[in-house]
Amino acid sequence: MNKKMIRYIVGSIIMLEAALLLLPILTAIVYGEWNTLRVFAGSALFCIVAGALLRGKKPENTTIFSVEGYVSVALCWVALSICGAIPLCVSGVLQNPFDAFFEIVSGFTTTGSSVMQSVEGAPRAILMWRSFSHWVGGMGVLVFMLALLPMAGPSSMHLMKAESPGPSVGKLVPKVRSTAKILYQIYFVLTVAMLVCMILTGCPLFDSINLTFATAGTGGFGVLDSSAAEYGAATQWVMTIFMILFGVNFNVYFLFYVKRFKEGMKSEEARAYLGIIASAVLLISVNIFYMVRNLELTVRQAAFQVASIITTTGFSSVDFDLWPEFSKGILVLLMFCGACAGSTGGGMKVSRLCIMAKTVMKELAFIIHPRNVRKTRFEGKTVEHEVLRSINVFLVAYLGIFVLSVMLISLDNFDFATNFTAVAATLNNIGPGLAKVGPTQNFGIYSNFSKLVLAFDMLAGRLEIFPMLVPVIYLLRKKQLS
Amino acid sequence: MNKKMIRYIVGSIIMLEAALLLLPILTAIVYGEWNTLRVFAGSALFCIVAGALLRGKKPENTTIFSVEGYVSVALCWVALSICGAIPLCVSGVLQNPFDAFFEIVSGFTTTGSSVMQSVEGAPRAILMWRSFSHWVGGMGVLVFMLALLPMAGPSSMHLMKAESPGPSVGKLVPKVRSTAKILYQIYFVLTVAMLVCMILTGCPLFDSINLTFATAGTGGFGVLDSSAAEYGAATQWVMTIFMILFGVNFNVYFLFYVKRFKEGMKSEEARAYLGIIASAVLLISVNIFYMVRNLELTVRQAAFQVASIITTTGFSSVDFDLWPEFSKGILVLLMFCGACAGSTGGGMKVSRLCIMAKTVMKELAFIIHPRNVRKTRFEGKTVEHEVLRSINVFLVAYLGIFVLSVMLISLDNFDFATNFTAVAATLNNIGPGLAKVGPTQNFGIYSNFSKLVLAFDMLAGRLEIFPMLVPVIYLLRKKQLS
Repeated sequence: MNKKMIRYIVGSIIMLEAALLLLPILTAIVYGEWNTLRVFAGSALFCIVAGALLRGKKPENTTIFSVEGYVSVALCWVALSICGAIPLCVSGVLQNPFDAFFEIVSGFTTTGSSVMQSVEGAPRAILMWRSFSHWVGGMGVLVFMLALLPMAGPSSMHLMKAESPGPSVGKLVPKVRSTAKILYQIYFVLTVAMLVCMILTGCPLFDSINLTFATAGTGGFGVLDSSAAEYGAATQWVMTIFMILFGVNFNVYFLFYVKRFKEGMKSEEARAYLGIIASAVLLISVNIFYMVRNLELTVRQAAFQVASIITTTGFSSVDFDLWPEFSKGILVLLMFCGACAGSTGGGMKVSRLCIMAKTVMKELAFIIHPRNVRKTRFEGKTVEHEVLRSINVFLVAYLGIFVLSVMLISLDNFDFATNFTAVAATLNNIGPGLAKVGPTQNFGIYSNFSKLVLAFDMLAGRLEIFPMLVPVIYLLRKKQLS
Repeated sequence: MNKKMIRYIVGSIIMLEAALLLLPILTAIVYGEWNTLRVFAGSALFCIVAGALLRGKKPENTTIFSVEGYVSVALCWVALSICGAIPLCVSGVLQNPFDAFFEIVSGFTTTGSSVMQSVEGAPRAILMWRSFSHWVGGMGVLVFMLALLPMAGPSSMHLMKAESPGPSVGKLVPKVRSTAKILYQIYFVLTVAMLVCMILTGCPLFDSINLTFATAGTGGFGVLDSSAAEYGAATQWVMTIFMILFGVNFNVYFLFYVKRFKEGMKSEEARAYLGIIASAVLLISVNIFYMVRNLELTVRQAAFQVASIITTTGFSSVDFDLWPEFSKGILVLLMFCGACAGSTGGGMKVSRLCIMAKTVMKELAFIIHPRNVRKTRFEGKTVEHEVLRSINVFLVAYLGIFVLSVMLISLDNFDFATNFTAVAATLNNIGPGLAKVGPTQNFGIYSNFSKLVLAFDMLAGRLEIFPMLVPVIYLLRKKQLS
């Protein structure tokens, strides 16, 4: 294992975080929050010193393999979160370090589950840091680093593979660095487009910036205690549309970008994703109409919540915990479904579900016509055996972590719906669950131990499980051998 | 599709049911329940006539393939349940035909979920019929028929494959008919052994017979409203031990039967199964000790409930819905785990879970040591790619049905814990769930539509999903083609 290179990568990421802290520092200056300014400036300084010490000189051997890729990514995200929690803790907003850690993990993993009782009294620089962490985490901080730093070809691919969501990582262009750059360009353009739309609908500037960051990363931290319920109809519609857009596979935008429109329109995953959204909105609208009795409002509430949950953003424009069980059931389902692979959204990803469903249909067809053997096809291509296997292993590991987490947090003795949806909301990077962790509640009720479990789930969800398991197994094996 | 042969098989099963009805007829005579006697005699007559009409002459072409095997098994179980529901409905015990159907499906599938408010006032012949349906369903009614009727070799294998639980069907001896006979011999011996033990502990004869049937089939219908709570400590321990024994893979007993003790003791699945039971009992005992404050009683309650849930029997000796969330969580987990493949128990089966866990460990090992490719091994043999695929497809189909069922029954608007555990308890053939379908409650609260959904789940669970899906897909495809 190339430990020097791992240290080098983690150190670089911590130094990069100092640069990211410039945005809340700027915010603190603009709004004259001098105490908070000192906290953030101190944190940035700490990141520079700690990062530089850890990083050391660039190692001679920069080659890394798959296992180092996974370990680096896991350590980077943990280091990023620990350093990012410092300002939250030191500023006194979240005095319990576990709370601060939970909150910023929730930020970087674009989950949006909060332990804060109220956000409206918090300094604006703190709120900006939370929202910004969503934006950074959405596209991936290592992808960001790869866009900036030159690195040996296959090594950087191992990093990107470990951090990127979805069953298979497609390099858009031959060079990893160029791919990372193009992804960030698309991300940036969409973000700016949304910000402009938000301001045009009359949403205040500070709110617009924060909500745009949180939507782009499919995070869900808001700046009002009511999440998105108090904004106007136009603002809510803009948010709904952009949540859906940020949940589409970025490959589709890339195809548009290089003017291969026809191919882009054909994306099987994007079509399935939009189909699921349309069906869910329809079913929920019919189910909740009797509560609202206004067509536009019904559809808006349904569409907003569906977009928010399927993209794993986690805003709410209404307390959906009060909806009938059928509608709540659809939302819980969408929690697991998640957005498209290669988007900023979390969850199991539409493409995985499509492929899984296809394998079942193939098996049934095989029973009926044993002579008619066909391969599973997706996006016009035969799905490789390798991909099928990785999807199945993913599903099993995912369920294993899910079940174990529910068990561990149930030691706090809250009810089943609360525990089940708390894990569903964190492992899928959504934000709010139902019952005691519903949209009007928060995760502060849980013990510190449970908060750590849920923080692990958020990281496992964002990094798609394996990067969080590989280091654990590696250490266990090493102990066994020694 | 060989429709004549399917008709012939279904007709034979209905005629066989007339023979099965002799036991409740005998019970009615012994206890002098003359009204009930007439109902059962009439039902038996109906079965003979309807069965004979449907069966017709033996077709010339008796060869069937995989698809006919699946369709026959599905139709047999549905026909068996419809005919078996007649006495329940006509006797007035369950006047709603949906209730009667639900109840007997629950019997044959060895689920044990009941819609009856109280069983203590019901005629004894009815109770005997319910318990006996567990015993018949446990080993499989088609397997029973195969033991009696001679049939062309590969054709009967297709039937047995479709009805038997577990990832791969092992013929114990080259002939299917002999295998079926040996299985029923082992089953019979274990049943008699349990009956003797029950009587020795001082349990009343009628109760002993019923509880033995229900335990052997891992069903769970009782003859007291309190399930097993009122029986003495010795009786409860006997039930616990035999529940565990009936959950062991019958291959192990076969190995003992042919004096290959060493091989029998080595069964990886049986060891994992006993290991899971021991761990669950330990964890729950620690967790509930503060409620009981008596070591023997604590362990007995924990062991009884664990054995009852993991084997998917579903008796209860205490209202476990009042246990802390952690213990309830373990029980919910065990619901999905289920017993060994090739036992009378339901659920996902321990062997499937073992193999799934092993594929994940293999994948992680592969990331750490990419050059060290090893195959997944289970029970000392390499797991074939074919088996792995079928397990994965099973898991996906299982989850799909689970999710869809929860959605459909949530239209009745009960809470999430109720709906979730109602589906878990029926799809895994357990019996009681938690909350509104907990051990002291019943499934009568649900609408007729939901009862049909849950009945489908019980059948899908008992037949391991594919036999229930194949006919549906076949009909859909035919419509598409025409």
